[in-house]
Amino acid sequence: MTPDDLVEIEAIKRVKYKYVRCLDQKLWDEIAECFTADAVASYSGGKYSYDGREAIVGFLVRSMGDETFLSSHRVHHPEVDLTGPGTAEATWALEDTVLVGAFGVMVRGAAFYEDEYVKTADGWRISRTGYKRTFEEIEPLDRPGRKLTASWWATGGQSELPA
Amino acid sequence: MTPDDLVEIEAIKRVKYKYVRCLDQKLWDEIAECFTADAVASYSGGKYSYDGREAIVGFLVRSMGDETFLSSHRVHHPEVDLTGPGTAEATWALEDTVLVGAFGVMVRGAAFYEDEYVKTADGWRISRTGYKRTFEEIEPLDRPGRKLTASWWATGGQSELPA
Amino acid sequence: MTPDDLVEIEAIKRVKYKYVRCLDQKLWDEIAECFTADAVASYSGGKYSYDGREAIVGFLVRSMGDETFLSSHRVHHPEVDLTGPGTAEATWALEDTVLVGAFGVMVRGAAFYEDEYVKTADGWRISRTGYKRTFEEIEPLDRPGRKLTASWWATGGQSELPA
Repeated sequence: MTPDDLVEIEAIKRVKYKYVRCLDQKLWDEIAECFTADAVASYSGGKYSYDGREAIVGFLVRSMGDETFLSSHRVHHPEVDLTGPGTAEATWALEDTVLVGAFGVMVRGAAFYEDEYVKTADGWRISRTGYKRTFEEIEPLDRPGRKLTASWWATGGQSELPA
Repeated sequence: MTPDDLVEIEAIKRVKYKYVRCLDQKLWDEIAECFTADAVASYSGGKYSYDGREAIVGFLVRSMGDETFLSSHRVHHPEVDLTGPGTAEATWALEDTVLVGAFGVMVRGAAFYEDEYVKTADGWRISRTGYKRTFEEIEPLDRPGRKLTASWWATGGQSELPA
Repeated sequence: MTPDDLVEIEAIKRVKYKYVRCLDQKLWDEIAECFTADAVASYSGGKYSYDGREAIVGFLVRSMGDETFLSSHRVHHPEVDLTGPGTAEATWALEDTVLVGAFGVMVRGAAFYEDEYVKTADGWRISRTGYKRTFEEIEPLDRPGRKLTASWWATGGQSELPA
């Protein structure tokens, strides 16, 4: 590993960070820029598999587009390896908490991503992605005393808790 | 981006990591070193806004100083851009869980920070910071079978669970 | 800090990332590669202390080896300092959630690691590690409507939620 390799690795981390930020902020046009046109995705141990950028983004919009679907996807522990000129692979640890307003449930879990990246004329892009869950659990949002006190969309990201 | 840029970016990440560590360890003198004297903060979508390092640190001490206020602030996904000689901006993803002993509640949420940094004679400092919440929820600490089993202050950071 | 220092720092982060991945994936042979033979560990404010790689790994296998023990350990905020030729120290922030199937409880907490590293002929290794908890709490898994919907071992990492 050289200092120049680190510049490539930082750029690869950046495309992943943009991807998860766009997920949670529902920036669907911008998220498309994270993938190659022929990218493939295999989420949740292959349960949700898609071929091509359009199919992947379509799935994300369908499953997460609703503004009462509030999510926090956080990726950790990047183990990025450059595998050739303009190619790389990486493992990431995921934790995600999603509040699914429409169904009144919280889904929370942990997983490991295995990704592949290619360097295009426009920079590094995700060409293959997928994760396998360590665990996942579901729980009702309707619990004694539990209350939603802020939402990016419903409260402008401001807390409604008394100061 | 060059290897030398990466050195600056790592130094910028370090001041943010020091900031969140000092928050959760209640190191108020040390946290002041993270800010420029004229720093401005706008937390929770602008609900908590402060002008100047002294006002910012005063707010943090007032709201988080109590030793039964137990917090975990974790920042992720640094998208740091150098914007000029000695200036930078960054986006970070936050997750925070706080146990507010005095009120018997847990507050848990996710947010995105937008920060600005300047390089001073003493190194990089935060000159502007603020976050907007993706979501925030509150829940009572008094839940069936739930128990606090360790605290930095009350148990010296040691678990009271049976081995 | 120089670009060459960053290469060492990235390699140090990588051994920590491998360590926590191996914890959650139960890769006990691989996790041994993260430590020097004479490494010492002091977990949970010293409650769980071990001398030597063999004793450390033995503890990890005993406490986390069961496939109904589902864990997510996530480390954040690396503040890594090179302290000499081939030595380094670091602070990390930990968040961990573990579902202990055998006892029907969830344990969740936050902590700060203080680590030391040495550079061996085989690369950087952890020579000293330990954490002190900011907080830790326990709660039964048997809560109204709460359900486990995926496990790396029991479901192949795939969610059992309806699509």
